[in-house]
Amino acid sequence: MLKELKIQTNQREELIDITHLIREEIASENISNGIVHLHVPHTTAAITINENADPDVKRDILYKLNKEIPQQDNYYHGEGNSDAHIKSSLFGPTLQLIVSDSKLLLGTWQGILFCEFDGPRNRRLYLKIVAD
Amino acid sequence: MLKELKIQTNQREELIDITHLIREEIASENISNGIVHLHVPHTTAAITINENADPDVKRDILYKLNKEIPQQDNYYHGEGNSDAHIKSSLFGPTLQLIVSDSKLLLGTWQGILFCEFDGPRNRRLYLKIVAD
Amino acid sequence: MLKELKIQTNQREELIDITHLIREEIASENISNGIVHLHVPHTTAAITINENADPDVKRDILYKLNKEIPQQDNYYHGEGNSDAHIKSSLFGPTLQLIVSDSKLLLGTWQGILFCEFDGPRNRRLYLKIVAD
Repeated sequence: MLKELKIQTNQREELIDITHLIREEIASENISNGIVHLHVPHTTAAITINENADPDVKRDILYKLNKEIPQQDNYYHGEGNSDAHIKSSLFGPTLQLIVSDSKLLLGTWQGILFCEFDGPRNRRLYLKIVAD
Repeated sequence: MLKELKIQTNQREELIDITHLIREEIASENISNGIVHLHVPHTTAAITINENADPDVKRDILYKLNKEIPQQDNYYHGEGNSDAHIKSSLFGPTLQLIVSDSKLLLGTWQGILFCEFDGPRNRRLYLKIVAD
Repeated sequence: MLKELKIQTNQREELIDITHLIREEIASENISNGIVHLHVPHTTAAITINENADPDVKRDILYKLNKEIPQQDNYYHGEGNSDAHIKSSLFGPTLQLIVSDSKLLLGTWQGILFCEFDGPRNRRLYLKIVAD
């Protein structure tokens, strides 16, 4: 089972909680136990897990990333988005999650965040569920 | 097979070698070949692989992370641990490891490190083994 | 199926596109659908995904990593490569990729990059393919 989800981003940098999208796919596939593989097919975006409650956490993550890795530096790449490429590898474009008793296994405060570092763009996310 | 391990941390920031715990689980499950999925259900902790020999490597990693991402910065999140949230996404809360011929596949100098960034706390680690 | 690939690096820091090596293994194993697990058994190297087109992206990634995490700092570890250990955990030594319809699932601009942070050395990469 391989699916492609569409994700519309609205800012140059943005962390978008997509936990509900992943939960919907697990429910629609009727999986009891297994692994969900997520793959972002872009080199200026990423996927991570972080706090789903206080939106200031997302703001602080983006603030600090941009303070340390600003868009302007002594870069050679002509598209002006080398900072986004670096952030993509730091957070990583893939994620594997456990499904247990038909539920996505996450901590109380954990949400799955799609990371846009060079938007706004129409982005994609591949999702493959492997049942036990 | 899904298990929950308990990990007690003792410092605000700490890298704890848990390789032996993972090896014990593989041995007790009698797995010959497969994949071990690890998931830290916290947003201010992480899991990584690094050197298991010289403890100065762990010290240097924490030293440099704190030098570049100190606890105090212009953060909005009121709990005073935004640095820990950022470090959690940089190192990542999940890890997948290969089991081959009943052994955890690691390099000579590699150990599995539980990363505490906002302790001390009672932490948990989910472990799921999928045999081939 | 577990394989060990050899990778010769030529610089202290280097990002080497190994996508073709992974594609060859998938082809030789005749896998239609499944997951490729990659594991770098070293603590001063890593594996990541990033742009495969403009070589300036690789240069910019290494430039910025070294600007923020130079080889010299107030480190205790006596081998003079603490920077490489830190970079290894930031980019991560493992990667999981999706195989779909006999093809490695990657975005148009994505390549798999072996990351050398303390070369030149003879490096290894473990590859395990799990078919659905």
